[in-house]
Amino acid sequence: MSDTALRIRVIGDLFPELAEQLAATGAEAVQDAADAQGIVCSYGGTPAELHDTLAAHPGIPWVQLPSAGIEAFAASLRDHPGLIWTSAKGAFALPVAEHALALTLALLRELPERVRARSWAPASGTSLHGLHVVVVGAGGVGLEIVRLMKCFDTRVTVVRRRGEPVAAADRTVTDAELMAVLPTADVVVLAAAATPDTRQLIDAAALAALPAHAVLINIARGALVDTDALVAALGAGRIAGAALDVTDPEPLPDGHPLWEEPRALITPHAADTLEMIRPLYAARVGENVARRRAGRELVGLVDPAAGY
Amino acid sequence: MSDTALRIRVIGDLFPELAEQLAATGAEAVQDAADAQGIVCSYGGTPAELHDTLAAHPGIPWVQLPSAGIEAFAASLRDHPGLIWTSAKGAFALPVAEHALALTLALLRELPERVRARSWAPASGTSLHGLHVVVVGAGGVGLEIVRLMKCFDTRVTVVRRRGEPVAAADRTVTDAELMAVLPTADVVVLAAAATPDTRQLIDAAALAALPAHAVLINIARGALVDTDALVAALGAGRIAGAALDVTDPEPLPDGHPLWEEPRALITPHAADTLEMIRPLYAARVGENVARRRAGRELVGLVDPAAGY
Repeated sequence: MSDTALRIRVIGDLFPELAEQLAATGAEAVQDAADAQGIVCSYGGTPAELHDTLAAHPGIPWVQLPSAGIEAFAASLRDHPGLIWTSAKGAFALPVAEHALALTLALLRELPERVRARSWAPASGTSLHGLHVVVVGAGGVGLEIVRLMKCFDTRVTVVRRRGEPVAAADRTVTDAELMAVLPTADVVVLAAAATPDTRQLIDAAALAALPAHAVLINIARGALVDTDALVAALGAGRIAGAALDVTDPEPLPDGHPLWEEPRALITPHAADTLEMIRPLYAARVGENVARRRAGRELVGLVDPAAGY
Repeated sequence: MSDTALRIRVIGDLFPELAEQLAATGAEAVQDAADAQGIVCSYGGTPAELHDTLAAHPGIPWVQLPSAGIEAFAASLRDHPGLIWTSAKGAFALPVAEHALALTLALLRELPERVRARSWAPASGTSLHGLHVVVVGAGGVGLEIVRLMKCFDTRVTVVRRRGEPVAAADRTVTDAELMAVLPTADVVVLAAAATPDTRQLIDAAALAALPAHAVLINIARGALVDTDALVAALGAGRIAGAALDVTDPEPLPDGHPLWEEPRALITPHAADTLEMIRPLYAARVGENVARRRAGRELVGLVDPAAGY
């Protein structure tokens, strides 16, 4: 490890946990980007600020992005594909996967109906035990969702771009087999990156392939779902419910039909709140500063071509 | 194991899974209780039918009850304390504990508010990771709740009548220490039997001992909570929320203030629906028939004095 501090330009909020991690791992936050050996994008910073900083100082070798999904920074990645890019992928897996489970159980246990009720009713609802859960995406969030689902007696199929088996899942298939697994799915959880390949992955045909009792959970990106097709499928009762922490468009505008759809449960991109992720992001930045100083490979490396 | 079938009088519904289990484990369902070597109470049967059957045939040595909580059968237990009584305690632990987790996550993730929303809002909510969870009761349901809570990075304290430590919990205390643990609880889950000792265990003083951000979950019996005190505590914001699958009175009558309380989430005793428990109860009955025929100790033995 080098004895000299790693000079980091922070774009956005240098919040206390981040300042502590930088200090603890041997980084120095610098004001002038001309001196910087790395850029850490934090909350409150904008893609435009990053783009301008890199345009002025294209020789800064490493950029750390503050979220798992990085499509907002696409212009900078495109203009500077030769830099070392790291995202926060995997760092927020615990709260995001927890939210996916919360939404899954809420739909299975019919909690939206219970919230609206003003009268006792016959007992109803479905247990997660015994169900077939399809998890689309095998990044940090997808793997943590598989782990949580396996705390119950479920059968889990993972759908991922490449076919390497996920050890904790019962079965792993490639994207090409998505349509073949949907007809036996009880629960579908979307945890894939937003890329041109995954755009509207869940379209009218995918929704039609699901059984009528199936529920769809999206904690990834709104673009993975054809919203109009989902509105139609929910309205016609072709699937039993959808819980969306991300939407397309996002924010979901006032008056959008999903707000009035009783089979839809919308949470406002709240799977990982700032309060939850600040300490997790600070720890990730600290990990990467320490690795960078030691000359080791960084965590969360982005493939600019793949988009995640 | 005896070669002759065990003669069982079924009170209530001899549903298909139960009939299959009786046949598979060497029991014969008899119409005339005078011949019976055991009584299996099933769904659709009433405590009065059991009471009348035992009054006419007090020599039947074994009675299997169809639920974990047995207070509805108190009169028969009191009049025939010398019989072998078994309940379904522990048999429905999986779906009931799952419901407790569903309700916990729903309150932490502010899902009732999201169901009512008609507009995007700032992200908010609390992650279960890092919280202190107090589980009251260490029967089958309580132990399964501990297991599920430990799928997250939680600190779990179990409160039970006797002090034997629960291995999976961080700490086990006796009922006498309940008031001492409440001030540091983030989540309190009630999973204890309804007995004279647990009646209104959560009263105004217990609610006042909780921090303002705490949530209370009851999947056990309504009698464990002083409902009027809970209504007052929720209305004043002295705790953040309560999710009740059981109520006192139950069913919760129309117009009860809890129906309009935004911090309350009511489910209609739906933690274990008939559909969920039928196969689990049939398996429990089969297990006990096989044990009885082999002369082994039964599962779910009830202590008539303790009431569970």
